[in-house]
Amino acid sequence: MSTSTMHIDIRNTSRETLEESSRSAAQTLLERYRRTRARSEELIAGLSDADATAQSMPDASPVKWHLAHTTWFFETFVLQEHVPGYIPFDSRYPYLFNSYYEAKGPRILRGSRGLLTRPTLEEILSYRAYVDAAISKVWESISVCAQDVTILGCHHEQQHQELLLTDILHLFAQNPLFPAVHARTSVELCKTPESLKWLRGRKGQVQIGHDGDGFAFDCEGPRHTAWLTPHDLASRLVTNAEWLAFVIDGGYSKADHWLSDGWAWVRENDINAPLYWLKNSGNEWSRQFSLNGILSLNPDTPVCHVSYYEADAFARWAGYRLPTETEWESAAVDQSSEFRVNFDRFRWDQDRADADRHMDLSDLRWEWTASSFLPYPGFRAPPGAVGEYNGKFMSGQFVLRGGSCATPIGHTRATYRNFFYPHQRWQFTGVRLARDI
Amino acid sequence: MSTSTMHIDIRNTSRETLEESSRSAAQTLLERYRRTRARSEELIAGLSDADATAQSMPDASPVKWHLAHTTWFFETFVLQEHVPGYIPFDSRYPYLFNSYYEAKGPRILRGSRGLLTRPTLEEILSYRAYVDAAISKVWESISVCAQDVTILGCHHEQQHQELLLTDILHLFAQNPLFPAVHARTSVELCKTPESLKWLRGRKGQVQIGHDGDGFAFDCEGPRHTAWLTPHDLASRLVTNAEWLAFVIDGGYSKADHWLSDGWAWVRENDINAPLYWLKNSGNEWSRQFSLNGILSLNPDTPVCHVSYYEADAFARWAGYRLPTETEWESAAVDQSSEFRVNFDRFRWDQDRADADRHMDLSDLRWEWTASSFLPYPGFRAPPGAVGEYNGKFMSGQFVLRGGSCATPIGHTRATYRNFFYPHQRWQFTGVRLARDI
Amino acid sequence: MSTSTMHIDIRNTSRETLEESSRSAAQTLLERYRRTRARSEELIAGLSDADATAQSMPDASPVKWHLAHTTWFFETFVLQEHVPGYIPFDSRYPYLFNSYYEAKGPRILRGSRGLLTRPTLEEILSYRAYVDAAISKVWESISVCAQDVTILGCHHEQQHQELLLTDILHLFAQNPLFPAVHARTSVELCKTPESLKWLRGRKGQVQIGHDGDGFAFDCEGPRHTAWLTPHDLASRLVTNAEWLAFVIDGGYSKADHWLSDGWAWVRENDINAPLYWLKNSGNEWSRQFSLNGILSLNPDTPVCHVSYYEADAFARWAGYRLPTETEWESAAVDQSSEFRVNFDRFRWDQDRADADRHMDLSDLRWEWTASSFLPYPGFRAPPGAVGEYNGKFMSGQFVLRGGSCATPIGHTRATYRNFFYPHQRWQFTGVRLARDI
Amino acid sequence: MSTSTMHIDIRNTSRETLEESSRSAAQTLLERYRRTRARSEELIAGLSDADATAQSMPDASPVKWHLAHTTWFFETFVLQEHVPGYIPFDSRYPYLFNSYYEAKGPRILRGSRGLLTRPTLEEILSYRAYVDAAISKVWESISVCAQDVTILGCHHEQQHQELLLTDILHLFAQNPLFPAVHARTSVELCKTPESLKWLRGRKGQVQIGHDGDGFAFDCEGPRHTAWLTPHDLASRLVTNAEWLAFVIDGGYSKADHWLSDGWAWVRENDINAPLYWLKNSGNEWSRQFSLNGILSLNPDTPVCHVSYYEADAFARWAGYRLPTETEWESAAVDQSSEFRVNFDRFRWDQDRADADRHMDLSDLRWEWTASSFLPYPGFRAPPGAVGEYNGKFMSGQFVLRGGSCATPIGHTRATYRNFFYPHQRWQFTGVRLARDI
Repeated sequence: MSTSTMHIDIRNTSRETLEESSRSAAQTLLERYRRTRARSEELIAGLSDADATAQSMPDASPVKWHLAHTTWFFETFVLQEHVPGYIPFDSRYPYLFNSYYEAKGPRILRGSRGLLTRPTLEEILSYRAYVDAAISKVWESISVCAQDVTILGCHHEQQHQELLLTDILHLFAQNPLFPAVHARTSVELCKTPESLKWLRGRKGQVQIGHDGDGFAFDCEGPRHTAWLTPHDLASRLVTNAEWLAFVIDGGYSKADHWLSDGWAWVRENDINAPLYWLKNSGNEWSRQFSLNGILSLNPDTPVCHVSYYEADAFARWAGYRLPTETEWESAAVDQSSEFRVNFDRFRWDQDRADADRHMDLSDLRWEWTASSFLPYPGFRAPPGAVGEYNGKFMSGQFVLRGGSCATPIGHTRATYRNFFYPHQRWQFTGVRLARDI
Repeated sequence: MSTSTMHIDIRNTSRETLEESSRSAAQTLLERYRRTRARSEELIAGLSDADATAQSMPDASPVKWHLAHTTWFFETFVLQEHVPGYIPFDSRYPYLFNSYYEAKGPRILRGSRGLLTRPTLEEILSYRAYVDAAISKVWESISVCAQDVTILGCHHEQQHQELLLTDILHLFAQNPLFPAVHARTSVELCKTPESLKWLRGRKGQVQIGHDGDGFAFDCEGPRHTAWLTPHDLASRLVTNAEWLAFVIDGGYSKADHWLSDGWAWVRENDINAPLYWLKNSGNEWSRQFSLNGILSLNPDTPVCHVSYYEADAFARWAGYRLPTETEWESAAVDQSSEFRVNFDRFRWDQDRADADRHMDLSDLRWEWTASSFLPYPGFRAPPGAVGEYNGKFMSGQFVLRGGSCATPIGHTRATYRNFFYPHQRWQFTGVRLARDI
Repeated sequence: MSTSTMHIDIRNTSRETLEESSRSAAQTLLERYRRTRARSEELIAGLSDADATAQSMPDASPVKWHLAHTTWFFETFVLQEHVPGYIPFDSRYPYLFNSYYEAKGPRILRGSRGLLTRPTLEEILSYRAYVDAAISKVWESISVCAQDVTILGCHHEQQHQELLLTDILHLFAQNPLFPAVHARTSVELCKTPESLKWLRGRKGQVQIGHDGDGFAFDCEGPRHTAWLTPHDLASRLVTNAEWLAFVIDGGYSKADHWLSDGWAWVRENDINAPLYWLKNSGNEWSRQFSLNGILSLNPDTPVCHVSYYEADAFARWAGYRLPTETEWESAAVDQSSEFRVNFDRFRWDQDRADADRHMDLSDLRWEWTASSFLPYPGFRAPPGAVGEYNGKFMSGQFVLRGGSCATPIGHTRATYRNFFYPHQRWQFTGVRLARDI
Repeated sequence: MSTSTMHIDIRNTSRETLEESSRSAAQTLLERYRRTRARSEELIAGLSDADATAQSMPDASPVKWHLAHTTWFFETFVLQEHVPGYIPFDSRYPYLFNSYYEAKGPRILRGSRGLLTRPTLEEILSYRAYVDAAISKVWESISVCAQDVTILGCHHEQQHQELLLTDILHLFAQNPLFPAVHARTSVELCKTPESLKWLRGRKGQVQIGHDGDGFAFDCEGPRHTAWLTPHDLASRLVTNAEWLAFVIDGGYSKADHWLSDGWAWVRENDINAPLYWLKNSGNEWSRQFSLNGILSLNPDTPVCHVSYYEADAFARWAGYRLPTETEWESAAVDQSSEFRVNFDRFRWDQDRADADRHMDLSDLRWEWTASSFLPYPGFRAPPGAVGEYNGKFMSGQFVLRGGSCATPIGHTRATYRNFFYPHQRWQFTGVRLARDI
């Protein structure tokens, strides 16, 4: 997923919004808005003003920027477009926090966001409160169209919640003190991983893509026919123990299994293990840096923070391959399959306890697929401001499917197409194997 | 196509080689070898030692390197592997002219090939003659397996013949004197381009990929089923006149139609027209640099030397899109279609006059497709030295189909998958439009 | 001045420390220590944790780093070396805040200091208080040698006080909100600048360099003989109005007056005015960014924040040249001269009011000289840890003389040799002209 | 010396030209012109068109460029300015071969000169012959002023003769075949180096710089007074054996002795020995690449191809320092000294045999001094085209004195100031030590 852009299609939301156009639906949406907004602020508990300001690489954005940019979205597309007389919080903020409108003139350079020590975190929180209050105040009288955009804004903010976590993790990983983002709130159970089983995939003619029922980003459609050749999918993700065997076998030091671009990336960047793996004093990979600080490397947990290049090389080394997105989606929606992508765990449910949620999701990873991020047949970018740049990322990136331990509850679904460049690995990315039969 | 690598699959050649295993087939093959080798040397008529040495960019190789590398292929895989007692021409040459064996230790850096002023062009031609003589001498007694590799070597050399032309053209384009590679041998006829027609593409279930009958590179198979949604393909390529309209409409100065990566490329490199277009003193695009030196820009000729980014932007600007490789191949093999990819023009035919050939091919371009270069379902890289790196280029590149005015006679076919990065445009690349219906 | 290094010579301090070896001298020194330490913390009033963390370029350091590094100096060279049983505040800090000991293993990369969001500003202030308390506690019983190092540490901290201001100014200049470091505390008087007079310089044999009386950095000596040819020095610095004339005359767009390296720097960086000059909406240079935020450009104030390249080009354009450091120092110590470098204004005087101090110094600038920073005849780097890298900056840099509005009271003197690379200009640098006669 | 620029001062040549203004002097000058021109062509015996075209780095120029640029000088400043009706050889050549006139519009980028495979070496030699014939034809009637420029042009061409050799050596060093520029024409005698003696330098007031008698570049004057402190100079240069001791002692792996910029250069470029030193199979430094190909490393020969950073580090390691240019020149002109810079060996003498010349000069090196290349007191760049850029290189470079085995006979003198950046080492540079006493 481009780290600072959302992809929305107003047309896809029509059925959802029709159902919600009654007063009670509006109230439900307002509650959802408040929960989403509150969740962003829960995530930054314990972060300092400085933590929220720094930017560790151009691919990442400061926490403060995520908090402000998502607020700017509601201010611009809900309040300024739909509420006559709305007075912006600060006329200079759009310049600072607009991520992507090429046409609206120069913006602050992406790589320089970390120099914006002002506005302070406190000011950004005031900005959030100001916009939230304005939304609440006008909500009763707001149009259905504004409600639609609010739904979009909530999905947009959820994307940034995940990015916020991956970005702060990357920042803290640069600090020799290795601070923890969150104190550890739960004890990870020592469970034996299930043994890997091969699940027979569907074959022949299948349908994939979003059917327009409920919210989806535009690139998830149109729903269309595709053709599958016979294949199996692994029942679970590759574990740390399996990855360690790859490392020990010289996986990172022999060109054989690597894509040409991947091998160049390995050598230029001295890549020799997943991002955030750490060695002990005996020069063994035994620990990993995480949102909870440094943890011992759990052999049974799915490997995390690997690039497409690594995922592909591992699969070749193992004698298998990565699944295509068509294979993946067909399995994910197959009720009879044992395929372990439990979207129930991502389902929107405000009554579930946070503790449970953390427990449930800890072994989830975005799963690299062998599919380039390209338009589906018949895809056409929607017109207008919100859709200005739909599809503009459709070169050079690969699709990831599923969701991760950092993905907000209620955000992902079987047709969701996340995408990143093949060298990127600061997201919570993992590997599921496939094989031809 | 990776500019210094070939992709071959010995297994695919079996049927062809079986037919040729008789003495007369062997003679035919030897004749083909000689023609191919001679053709490489015809191409460099008029080039100086210095012309053959310089390298204008890392993507390109010196002419001398192409001549030597293709010779090294026959020396290594035919003579050294199959001819006992063969004495190499020079034991240092493999280090200089081996392009891709990662496992065989350090090679000269790709970007530094232009510094190899020695061996001289004359010495390289002696190397060629030495290897050619050795092949001729042992041909009678050579094994079928060695003949198979010889077939591969001929296809490999043909790939380098096209690269040799594109690379020398790029080199000469850097010279303010704009020298011509070839004196102009034919008068281009002033023909009115056909008006663009939309040809209905095939839909539903189709089969594409090489079926194993005759030679093909491994990435052209396996033959497999795919699914097509309803679409039309343009009956001809986009012309210079049509491209000029795009330029004049501000195509290169507005972000709207560009992929995000493409727009970054445009700005960083000040791209404002196809490679080799030149302005006149009145600041109008009126000329282009070519193998025949500077020519006036023919409005009716297919545009040439555009990148994928440009091709994609043009298509969006025009309201259309690029074809997928499945759409393209399905049309190309459709006997009933008016689709204008006449592979007869590429067919191997040693009796045709060179002049005719030049006339015929001048309007041919490699056609960018909307498909990433990825493995077909069931693809698996063959084992062994020759296949060491099959498939290793399957990330980040896009497929081109067809052939160009620089493609040797007998080299391309309907299943041929050429591939380049989306920013590259020093090949003879053009654009065919498609549309959903 | 190298931004993170100090240059000290214990031998030079002997006379000063002898005088202070009595109890009362020790008390005076402790008081000086406290004042210096307190001054650093006064300078950061109003800065946030984030302000103190960010780093705007590799040449600059974060405010927090300056505060911690200077503290690390006292902890390492006074407390750890001279106080048995001293317990360090945090064993990990030396790795984070040691600037220059190559021999002590890897340090955090200079350009990555801005990613250290932890320790927080508050923790750094606790670190400071901890070390200050320890110094106070042991002061009565401390050795003369430890006192010597304390003197050095105070001068070292003063260097960083100036760097702290220039670095935070540079950071805030990157922020489109242009925050002010300090609220404006005084009204600048509208005074007419004196008209430029040419003061006759000394000629023939002169003596320059520090004579060992009082503190000096090692590069200020040995005192030695030099020879001056007849010349004049300007009685005052070049003003903003004079510089504006240079700009308007095309000074930045014609190569004529520039050094070759300077002209390359101008073109690569689009340099067209002093750093921090700003245009108004009418495209005129009318404002400048400062520690007090954006101010109007005072025509009568000495120009500030120009590089050596600019200073040299201006001087050639004006028909003059820059003074050498020998010319400058000879004039600065000449009691009979009208030369306007009033070192009284820098003299250590704890009773002077802050307000006065600000008023006095506002027109002071470090003055670029035409002299490379090279060793004086007979210079030899002192042995031992503190002097480990004396002299290691003696290539590629130019000497600046005098002091600036940001130089702490009591820090500079006539023999002081500041030095920066010719392209650097984020210090408070200005220009005095000279001419041959 | 800037590799493509000359520094001339017409005023300094007046005395010389007055003496030569008679017919016989004109004949002598014409003979000198012819010898100088012929010498350039002797130097390229055995080089191919490709050898003469390639450029191994931006600091170097192709041989062909040197041959053409020096010819362009005579065509432009003698023939076009002083000979009415002269018809240029090719109107496009000034664009290709003008090195430095900023004001005359865009030139071909310095780093792209190696792509100019046309004009060919043969065409450049025709260009040379055309200009030489034109000079000869008009010589009888040429003005004194044109003669003056001819003298300049000869010195200019001699500078490029040395650069031509250093540049072709650098190019051949990039080739794994290590071709020799010249077949070895003489046997190097095995002579024991003299033991190093310390020669007492002059002290107190001295005069250095060119006095205007005979030709000199402008930066060699004005002659002026300087002051020397007591010092010794080494009687000979540092040898390979001495340098090897530095290498073996870890000279390149410890920061202690290095300038800060030098140490950064060592690490970034993996510097571990002088340029062109080679190891044998036993991993010992035992050979060096030279104009005669690979030779064994003669322990008694002065070390060659070291940068200023290396020279300075070696001197510190040895406990000494480099001489200043004032110390050097004062010794070089001191008739009573044993100082071993024998300028007789450079003296213009057309009757000496080439073989002798080679023998004599083989141990000569440009000697790095501790002095930055800065203007002498009273220096002022002369006005006009030829002097357009005098002095523009006076930042960041260090002075070298003496001459080298590649310096043409008759070119250098005691006041000659060569200059290069401290990291550059592809010239024939060596080290003489000095010490304070």
